[in-house]
Amino acid sequence: MQSTVIEKNLLLHLEKSLPHHLIKEVYHYALFPGGKYFRPHLVWAILADLNPSLYSQSALEDDSNHARIASSVEIHHTYTLLHDDLPCMDDDKLRRGKACTHIKYGEWQALLAGDGMLNISYQLISKINHIHMPELFKLYSWALGPKGLIHGQTLDLSHEMANSLSNTIRTHELKTARLIQVAIMGSALLANSKRNLILEKKLWRYSLYLGVLFQLIDDLSELAEENLTAHESEVNPWLKFTEETYSLTLKYMHEFKKVSDELKLSKTSLIVDEYFHKMLMIIEPNRKMILKHLKKEIDLAPAILFLKNFSLI
Amino acid sequence: MQSTVIEKNLLLHLEKSLPHHLIKEVYHYALFPGGKYFRPHLVWAILADLNPSLYSQSALEDDSNHARIASSVEIHHTYTLLHDDLPCMDDDKLRRGKACTHIKYGEWQALLAGDGMLNISYQLISKINHIHMPELFKLYSWALGPKGLIHGQTLDLSHEMANSLSNTIRTHELKTARLIQVAIMGSALLANSKRNLILEKKLWRYSLYLGVLFQLIDDLSELAEENLTAHESEVNPWLKFTEETYSLTLKYMHEFKKVSDELKLSKTSLIVDEYFHKMLMIIEPNRKMILKHLKKEIDLAPAILFLKNFSLI
Repeated sequence: MQSTVIEKNLLLHLEKSLPHHLIKEVYHYALFPGGKYFRPHLVWAILADLNPSLYSQSALEDDSNHARIASSVEIHHTYTLLHDDLPCMDDDKLRRGKACTHIKYGEWQALLAGDGMLNISYQLISKINHIHMPELFKLYSWALGPKGLIHGQTLDLSHEMANSLSNTIRTHELKTARLIQVAIMGSALLANSKRNLILEKKLWRYSLYLGVLFQLIDDLSELAEENLTAHESEVNPWLKFTEETYSLTLKYMHEFKKVSDELKLSKTSLIVDEYFHKMLMIIEPNRKMILKHLKKEIDLAPAILFLKNFSLI
Repeated sequence: MQSTVIEKNLLLHLEKSLPHHLIKEVYHYALFPGGKYFRPHLVWAILADLNPSLYSQSALEDDSNHARIASSVEIHHTYTLLHDDLPCMDDDKLRRGKACTHIKYGEWQALLAGDGMLNISYQLISKINHIHMPELFKLYSWALGPKGLIHGQTLDLSHEMANSLSNTIRTHELKTARLIQVAIMGSALLANSKRNLILEKKLWRYSLYLGVLFQLIDDLSELAEENLTAHESEVNPWLKFTEETYSLTLKYMHEFKKVSDELKLSKTSLIVDEYFHKMLMIIEPNRKMILKHLKKEIDLAPAILFLKNFSLI
């Protein structure tokens, strides 16, 4: 799936959900230009792996079920960024190389656009025409609600996240992995009219490992920068629990590779690989800087090898 | 339906949706003690009017469909209050006679609890086991999303609301009526397994008039106080468009009475009447103060008569 198609669908879905009003601009500013569209790409890749013929049929239709869930997860992701960036939360000024939405348009505009996007993400689910929509809806509201993603935000902001490595991993599971899991599990639920519980169980582990790894590797890549923000210095587990974080990361890499080999998801692996490659390009040339932050001698070679080798599947 | 049953269900539903964590306290503080539970009462009254036997069956079960939608609309209502009260929105300090949640617990706690409640309100819908759940879900996300309730908040905060009486009415339709409409239409959708489109059309008008009237009468009752806040002074339509607001209110009263007589909803009328009576108790003894704010001679007798007479159905 091309990012331009993902973007075109997002635009169409947004257009249908918004009133004719200046406020539209706030939503557009927050959503475009997008990031790497990692979650929508996962939605499409899972469909391509599990049901190629439905993929070819759906891929060009903005009113297909998978187009809707792809936009839904991206819009949900963007709402969390809008709220996280607010002064009472992380108080960020920059996002994706430009001023945060609340800096550009004002705080209430960013807060309400966040609330609006949260509703739109559900509205897109409500328009899904599939026997498993109710199941998806339950998964969605559980995984992203107060026991899920939002609890991850709570653990972060309450500073509990940084208390222990297990708290950090729990926060990564909730704040980062759950939405990635919804993208993968949701796409699988809509890929066929019959459920396959063995496949779903494997996909659950696959998506959980992927989500946590995604964040742990992102944490590591953060250290390629010379200067860290106060928040980064506080919550980055590589700084505080260096060896434990590294051995856990290697364990997650191992487990992820194992379930990935079992599942043989070729299209999805390409998306994952693209991310790993991007991280490799940050981590490998900056090993020295990273090790300087860590202040401990650890051998990054096995992790780098994993990121490199995953490409060779 | 007793308020204590509504409250007991709310507690149970909340308990199931929240993690074992101190953050629970924030949700509890925001929800309890509740207001008058106008919206949940409407849910139950509509069911009692449309399907009395299902009402008797469901009334004591917290996992009945109507218990879920009743809690859902109340929790959704509370999320809007949490976000509306934040400093970047209306910047309120007091709510229901106690410190606002963000004053008591902090801003990010109130913001995230609001996001959490928004998700819980959808989660409760996702657990509804009824052939019309998908329809309800579509209605819900449309009525309360960026073209609905959230657009009402936008018109209020952007000061467009106060530009003209028609903008005020539009804001009342979106910000106040939509959630009341969801309570009434949602309850009706779940009351039977067959849809009755003629009834639904009438209920749509009934709930729209009720929602707008609810707010217009509330606006009027606000003037019983000697001192108004800056926001009240700005957006209260009775101050700026006195005669037009009054003649429109009488028109809405007339239309509401007409469709109410057609529908003959005896239990629902009791809930509506209770509200009208409460407003009457504020407006009638304070006629002088209200007229002093209005600075124009208008004869409030017809409106007072309506509020009184509605009781006599």
